[in-house]
Amino acid sequence: MKSDPDRAQRIRESIQAGGLDAVLCAWPKNVLLLTGYWPIIGNSIALTDRDGRTTLIVPEDECDYIRASNADEIVPFRADRSTLEDVRKPLVQVLSSRNFRKIGIEFGPISQEASYVAMTLYGSALFDLLQGIVPNAEYSHAERLLNDERAILTPFEQERVRTSAAIAQGAFEAGRAKLEDGRSERELAQHFESPLSTLAQNYPAIIRAWGIASCMSGARAGNAFGAFAMSSSKTVNAGETILIHGNSHADGFWTDITRTYFIGKRTERISKMYEAIFEASEHAIGAIKPGVSAASIDRIVREKLAEYGFEKQIKHSSGHGVGYSAIDHRAAPKLAKDSSDIIQEGMVMNIEPGIYFESFGGMRLCDMVLVTDKGAELLTPFQRTIKELNVNN
Amino acid sequence: MKSDPDRAQRIRESIQAGGLDAVLCAWPKNVLLLTGYWPIIGNSIALTDRDGRTTLIVPEDECDYIRASNADEIVPFRADRSTLEDVRKPLVQVLSSRNFRKIGIEFGPISQEASYVAMTLYGSALFDLLQGIVPNAEYSHAERLLNDERAILTPFEQERVRTSAAIAQGAFEAGRAKLEDGRSERELAQHFESPLSTLAQNYPAIIRAWGIASCMSGARAGNAFGAFAMSSSKTVNAGETILIHGNSHADGFWTDITRTYFIGKRTERISKMYEAIFEASEHAIGAIKPGVSAASIDRIVREKLAEYGFEKQIKHSSGHGVGYSAIDHRAAPKLAKDSSDIIQEGMVMNIEPGIYFESFGGMRLCDMVLVTDKGAELLTPFQRTIKELNVNN
Repeated sequence: MKSDPDRAQRIRESIQAGGLDAVLCAWPKNVLLLTGYWPIIGNSIALTDRDGRTTLIVPEDECDYIRASNADEIVPFRADRSTLEDVRKPLVQVLSSRNFRKIGIEFGPISQEASYVAMTLYGSALFDLLQGIVPNAEYSHAERLLNDERAILTPFEQERVRTSAAIAQGAFEAGRAKLEDGRSERELAQHFESPLSTLAQNYPAIIRAWGIASCMSGARAGNAFGAFAMSSSKTVNAGETILIHGNSHADGFWTDITRTYFIGKRTERISKMYEAIFEASEHAIGAIKPGVSAASIDRIVREKLAEYGFEKQIKHSSGHGVGYSAIDHRAAPKLAKDSSDIIQEGMVMNIEPGIYFESFGGMRLCDMVLVTDKGAELLTPFQRTIKELNVNN
Repeated sequence: MKSDPDRAQRIRESIQAGGLDAVLCAWPKNVLLLTGYWPIIGNSIALTDRDGRTTLIVPEDECDYIRASNADEIVPFRADRSTLEDVRKPLVQVLSSRNFRKIGIEFGPISQEASYVAMTLYGSALFDLLQGIVPNAEYSHAERLLNDERAILTPFEQERVRTSAAIAQGAFEAGRAKLEDGRSERELAQHFESPLSTLAQNYPAIIRAWGIASCMSGARAGNAFGAFAMSSSKTVNAGETILIHGNSHADGFWTDITRTYFIGKRTERISKMYEAIFEASEHAIGAIKPGVSAASIDRIVREKLAEYGFEKQIKHSSGHGVGYSAIDHRAAPKLAKDSSDIIQEGMVMNIEPGIYFESFGGMRLCDMVLVTDKGAELLTPFQRTIKELNVNN
């Protein structure tokens, strides 16, 4: 019984449209896409053929964690010798009886989310192994097919992202309640990070849930425009911008959320920064609907921030695809100047207007939205007012 | 100024002994090995030539996080287009003026620790790019060289592992102090996990520190012999074995630690399980010294557990290399029946005797040791008595 027949149908159609006999994947996010199962250790392999029949090759340790998935066949293997030796036998078993002539494979690169503290990844060796097993097939890169498929979520997947966002909302509410100056960034971040795991117990359908929260304050927040956020041992003070960034997942579906807090009586400059990011966010979200260009949404964010005089403080583009991806600014739809992506129903993305003064402080509001047939549904409807973000004002 | 001249010298000698002109790496753990810098996002590249000259190609976002490293040259690049386009220019810049004819590269597979919530990894595409830039070179797989180098730590690296283990010790002490029945596994695990980050503030030399702790109790602990540990929403009860597993890092150097707690008055069976794992651990650690075989240490663990009647409850081998690796049971020295590894000075490994009754419960004691010239130094000297592990007895 397929848990997500919509996804199975779409993958089948994509494989047929691409003129392929099958697609074989091992990056965990693509195994999740094809089978509905997010590998833990990383050495699982997914195979879907042009009839939509899907096989999940998975270490037997992980079998207890596979619930009703989209795979028609589960092939467990024992991982006790070398990584390649272990998987050779199940791969031969699955491939040798089929007559695949055109196989889509992963070539790389990819932004791969952490499924556990370490992942066993195949690198180039998997293709080598595969060629040895099916030497006469024609291999082509399936990145485009896989990237396109991950960009639009099925209703089943949308529901998983909703749950993931709901857990993250609870974590931001718990962290906000414990926010105080005089603590280190590391300590404050943990008040947001810990609930990303513990609150999952309110959602019995979720097996795995976990995430990271980071705190960057004062001048560090002013430099928080990089591809990552990182807490330090710096003490957080009243009168500083306090940027909390979180990424979390529920069974492999990711969130990307930022809130910026301020402790104490805010200055006019801080009020203006808040107003600018609220307005940029509201206008951008209001303009999202199927058919508009991703670049036009990015432009709305830039123009609104510029209206407030913060043109020079814009340091990154305005958003990217989220769900299968956490922080990949290249995931479609890419809300950037040079993007050719078109917004489509079923896409989930973040909207992240940010203002950065490198020596003074920085502010970002990063939310997640789902594109519906009519517009955008906000998946992170919390802490979007000065009243909630300005503590002890 | 090299932070670790010993490592630089060993890498240079290995490259020369392998008849190579250079080694080029992109898996984060190998970039750490060659440069002393543990990439955050994952798209850094390290190059060391046969004279030991080392170049770190790194996204400019990460430059603030590179302290005194082993690299002679830092080449920052802007990551704003496609992953491959971004890195092409710095790669051309670094490679085009050199006349490398034999280049060692990574082929895979690997167990790669999570350096951040997601990592940008190159997959097969990096080799393709490289061949385009240096088409006439001869390429060979450098896995053996890299694996051998990672297995023996320099004094500088040993000191980093010591710090990493000290932070983890603090976290296990903090978690132990909050241990109580009636809470979920997820909640108990967080009391151990959160301090893996926050306690780093006691070690100003450490820039990044973080980890995961998992709790498996009762019958779940009885099944905790897989390649991973995972908390659930199950409530932890008195009278159950409570297995806490943690992996954490300080600036890229990893710990692997397990303690098994028991709340309430223990039965004779529980006492016997504790005695068996303590004795197996003590004897194995006592036997470790340079020159002995890794298989002989594994045998000591098995024999001691069997003496207590737990032969059938042994479900995994007795340890593996730790430091560059967290959970890789293939990392040398592999303490297993089929291992041909010889223990050498400077190796860091875990010793993890475990007993698993699938429906009753499980117990594991996982410690880390450093091989010195005379024997083994315990890096995790805490909570190794029944008195400390049996809460409210």
